[in-house]
Amino acid sequence: MAQDMTLLWGSGSPPCWRVMIALEEKNLQGYNQKLLSFEKGEHKSPEVLAMNPRGQLPAFKHKAYVLNESNAACIYLANQFQSQGTQLIPDCPAEQAMMYQRMFEGLTLNQKMADVIYYTWKVPEGERHDSAVKRNKEALIAELKLWEGYLNKGPGSFLAGNKFSLADVVVYPSIAYLFRFQLCGERYPNLAAYYNSLKDRASIKASWPPTWLESPDKSAMLKDF
Amino acid sequence: MAQDMTLLWGSGSPPCWRVMIALEEKNLQGYNQKLLSFEKGEHKSPEVLAMNPRGQLPAFKHKAYVLNESNAACIYLANQFQSQGTQLIPDCPAEQAMMYQRMFEGLTLNQKMADVIYYTWKVPEGERHDSAVKRNKEALIAELKLWEGYLNKGPGSFLAGNKFSLADVVVYPSIAYLFRFQLCGERYPNLAAYYNSLKDRASIKASWPPTWLESPDKSAMLKDF
Repeated sequence: MAQDMTLLWGSGSPPCWRVMIALEEKNLQGYNQKLLSFEKGEHKSPEVLAMNPRGQLPAFKHKAYVLNESNAACIYLANQFQSQGTQLIPDCPAEQAMMYQRMFEGLTLNQKMADVIYYTWKVPEGERHDSAVKRNKEALIAELKLWEGYLNKGPGSFLAGNKFSLADVVVYPSIAYLFRFQLCGERYPNLAAYYNSLKDRASIKASWPPTWLESPDKSAMLKDF
Repeated sequence: MAQDMTLLWGSGSPPCWRVMIALEEKNLQGYNQKLLSFEKGEHKSPEVLAMNPRGQLPAFKHKAYVLNESNAACIYLANQFQSQGTQLIPDCPAEQAMMYQRMFEGLTLNQKMADVIYYTWKVPEGERHDSAVKRNKEALIAELKLWEGYLNKGPGSFLAGNKFSLADVVVYPSIAYLFRFQLCGERYPNLAAYYNSLKDRASIKASWPPTWLESPDKSAMLKDF
């Protein structure tokens, strides 16, 4: 039981979900946790700010060690609980290199997705431009094609080979997010196959965003991408 | 001699510099390397695209393993050459947690810095707004205050305690970049002390951007920040 860990999280946030998948893969259930609402602005509450001065979720700690950066938390958990649960960092240098490479490329995928999905939320009305929307769309499509190609080339059914790894922990939530916004599976068959193949993995199913279960398809924003 | 490694790089780019510092710290000199010019668009050359489909620098590989994401390359080198040169990942869980946390926070610092410094380069003329410039400035100042505070609180003279670590490898180039754009050391005394204290460290001195040696102060863009 991971009673020396605390997670403050929001439903559907890829960074929060990442940490939850890592915890599940490492059999670290039973941690202290609290679901907060982005809509109500609870990520800016004193409780969050005390742990995470940027007022963002997740806010996570193990004992007194604060790990709010979701990727930092995932790498830390993979290293500190190396022999517990799923091995998330491959020993083989070639696989390890690919794993870290894909993991960090995932940040770019997530950023390009956020630039599209959160555009009207992040950019004040008077600063919005159709040309920027078009550019963001093109950038995301180019990025999606890259990942579609990675999954086509193999070498396995996971992002960094034939074993589930930290790259999957970190990137899967972004890919699930794309399909929640109705990315077309026929246009991206490898991404769709990857998305579907991991849906029922225990760690992912156990941590599936509760708000997504309540309202399965939020928006058709990515339908024509 | 690291003859099984290849680095294509650009002078002054924090991501490129990071990898070079990591290589120096691990005594991995003598790698194949080529300095390319961003100004001439050489980062979009077929040579780079063959290694890095995003057309970005660095493009790095060890043997056949491609690690273009600079942070991925740094973590990989720190792990694969664990007992060679400087130990970059602390064993102590508290120090390791802080090291990964600061390392990933460094991505935010770098992003907020880029939003300010590259604004006119990244945003087409018709899409520029004073309100965005003001917001980016405020966001960078808030971020700088956070780091100034981190360095004040300690626990050591490095970013993650009293030993040089991967967090310093990754974040130092961004901090040096801030001072190249004339960030005011009197306003940020801890950042300035940190910047100056590492200037002469062997790994940093050996990899100092050659274009910076030729033209020390590029712009006063951050003078009033």
